[in-house]
Amino acid sequence: MYNLNRIEGGVCAAEGFFAEGIHIGLKKEGAKDLAFIYSEKPCAIASVFTTNKMTAAPIRHFRAKGDFEGNFVLINSKNANAMTGRAGIDDIDEVLNAVQEQFPYILHPVMSSTGVIGVRLPKTKIVEGAMHFDLSQRDGISASEAIMTTDTFAKRIAYEVVLEDGKSFKIGAMAKGAGMINPAMATMLCFITTDAAVDKMMMQNILDECVHTTFNAASVDGDTSTNDTVLVMANRESGVFHAEAFKEALESIMLFLAKEMVRDGEGATKLVTYKVTGAINHKEAEIAAKALSNSLLVKTALFGQDPNWGRIASTVGASGIMCDEAFLSIWFDDICVYKKGELLFDEKLEPLAAAVMQKSAFTIHCDIGLQDGEFTAYGCDLGHEYVKINADYRT
Amino acid sequence: MYNLNRIEGGVCAAEGFFAEGIHIGLKKEGAKDLAFIYSEKPCAIASVFTTNKMTAAPIRHFRAKGDFEGNFVLINSKNANAMTGRAGIDDIDEVLNAVQEQFPYILHPVMSSTGVIGVRLPKTKIVEGAMHFDLSQRDGISASEAIMTTDTFAKRIAYEVVLEDGKSFKIGAMAKGAGMINPAMATMLCFITTDAAVDKMMMQNILDECVHTTFNAASVDGDTSTNDTVLVMANRESGVFHAEAFKEALESIMLFLAKEMVRDGEGATKLVTYKVTGAINHKEAEIAAKALSNSLLVKTALFGQDPNWGRIASTVGASGIMCDEAFLSIWFDDICVYKKGELLFDEKLEPLAAAVMQKSAFTIHCDIGLQDGEFTAYGCDLGHEYVKINADYRT
Repeated sequence: MYNLNRIEGGVCAAEGFFAEGIHIGLKKEGAKDLAFIYSEKPCAIASVFTTNKMTAAPIRHFRAKGDFEGNFVLINSKNANAMTGRAGIDDIDEVLNAVQEQFPYILHPVMSSTGVIGVRLPKTKIVEGAMHFDLSQRDGISASEAIMTTDTFAKRIAYEVVLEDGKSFKIGAMAKGAGMINPAMATMLCFITTDAAVDKMMMQNILDECVHTTFNAASVDGDTSTNDTVLVMANRESGVFHAEAFKEALESIMLFLAKEMVRDGEGATKLVTYKVTGAINHKEAEIAAKALSNSLLVKTALFGQDPNWGRIASTVGASGIMCDEAFLSIWFDDICVYKKGELLFDEKLEPLAAAVMQKSAFTIHCDIGLQDGEFTAYGCDLGHEYVKINADYRT
Repeated sequence: MYNLNRIEGGVCAAEGFFAEGIHIGLKKEGAKDLAFIYSEKPCAIASVFTTNKMTAAPIRHFRAKGDFEGNFVLINSKNANAMTGRAGIDDIDEVLNAVQEQFPYILHPVMSSTGVIGVRLPKTKIVEGAMHFDLSQRDGISASEAIMTTDTFAKRIAYEVVLEDGKSFKIGAMAKGAGMINPAMATMLCFITTDAAVDKMMMQNILDECVHTTFNAASVDGDTSTNDTVLVMANRESGVFHAEAFKEALESIMLFLAKEMVRDGEGATKLVTYKVTGAINHKEAEIAAKALSNSLLVKTALFGQDPNWGRIASTVGASGIMCDEAFLSIWFDDICVYKKGELLFDEKLEPLAAAVMQKSAFTIHCDIGLQDGEFTAYGCDLGHEYVKINADYRT
């Protein structure tokens, strides 16, 4: 037995972790745009990166390092350092070497970037800005603000995990993401720190499992970024570990942050849970659930608060999974709008379904009616703001 | 040798075909909403239907007829007769039996529907309305108007195909489609009539080939409808046939109508041709081209007239095909914005690329730089109007 207690502090909640976000002039009007995470002790690092073939320079740089323990992550917003070729990787080396000269206790530093694609990193600004870092700061709040792009709120969470014998460890995280969010891999930036005494391989395995049902189940717009990154850093300060508790805490943190990202989806006004059951297997349930969370027609119907269940049925049918209208049933929360071939929708039912759609969070449940396959995905609506934000993102 | 001459008449251009669109009260304010196509002689019919598993009743009804020659198609808008189960198919039989009683020279009639999903067909209105049909009318214009839903203009085209020996046949068509358009199958309604003396099997084979590069290469919103249908009816009145000329005419007609649908995409302001070359095979080129035409981030950048080539690169990378930034090149019309790893974008190039994006039609060309695989897809931008149209489609 163990307890998960929600605590403050984000990436600085775990013992021995330091972080800070500062303004160095990449964003306008003093907004924070450069952050670090630092641990005195070197950390085992587990990672998951984008499946996009145009992998950004920071990810290529990280991978080229092979197996290592590090204690420093430098994160900038406003520039993705993607599509910048060999030069983009050299830029990272140059920046990190300069930072390491200033702070000689940094070991194997890595970098993470988010922002516009196809522009060289503003090296001088970043190096000069990093000179103002105070590595004794434990400011998870400013760090989570500095990594935001089109996010409208910062995303962070932390737990203290208390075991039966009273011993405990902590795990905290911050993430950014509001657009270019798609269930093909990590789908955004997320940094998780823990003082749990976890083995690196085990941490990587647990991370891989948790990604599937959390970040990979979330979609804002079906576009997979070049920079998607999840890093888990464990400095093992607490000396305590419990695999089941660690996994539950990690999954809980990642699901919370995945939902926060969808809730903060560009222009989104609703967080919708797509629960698909009764498919011939889990994989087919996943295909249908993700098709629903990515359908433009479903997303715009959600924005219009229109209980247009026909679009739900059509999207399931178009997803390619095995299904038949005679076995399908559809619910909006607990309102059944279509039951195994029966048209239930009438003047009495429509206002009930419409009322569900006016909520800021609700569940659309499709039972395929065939076997036991199930999957739950998370999506949002698509409104005018998404168009507005993305029609002139660069300007 | 042969010539294709563009002629008027739509589905009535070919000899022996009659058509008309009338208002029976399904649409508001007198707009036409019911159409027929009729041929005195029975027709060989080739068909392609949606891949959506929730196939609409008219398609199930058509398929259940097996092999037949028919001479009458009844088409209604405003109601898709989809998700209506066995009752939806019985409704069609009831309607067609009533129409056949009124017009006894109709042979094996079929029906085609487009509109809202999940509502029973307004049988009485349709049967009473059809009593007003004049089967001697050759009005391809009103017929093409009656099948419109969110279309802003009617879509039709016809050719006279003149062979070397002076003999000729004609082929004409009408189509509807502006939303729920996706390259998974026929993706809309299209009716093609010809007096060419074509064999049914050959016509079906030619149709299958042409669909791949035309309707299946077009996308408005990535959603595949329950009702997508292409019918080609050949009454063989001309006694003339030439396979190569027939195929060229059919492909040309279908490509024209596919582009018209994209140009009329809900809320669209631009028709964009996505040409992908240099992929390791044609299939991978097709995957990348369709990923581009369906990417929300690309579509909104188009709407914003923002030459954000990074989103093009990212979308190609996310599509899963074999590619590498060091081999990729990107053009907006003839303006090269990224060349095999080289960042070309600067203050001089940006306004040139931006000028291309201000055009109402242009080409985005991605050369993957690996082998000879190529495919061309057609898409449009996504603006506020798409959201507006789809957020309250039913109301």
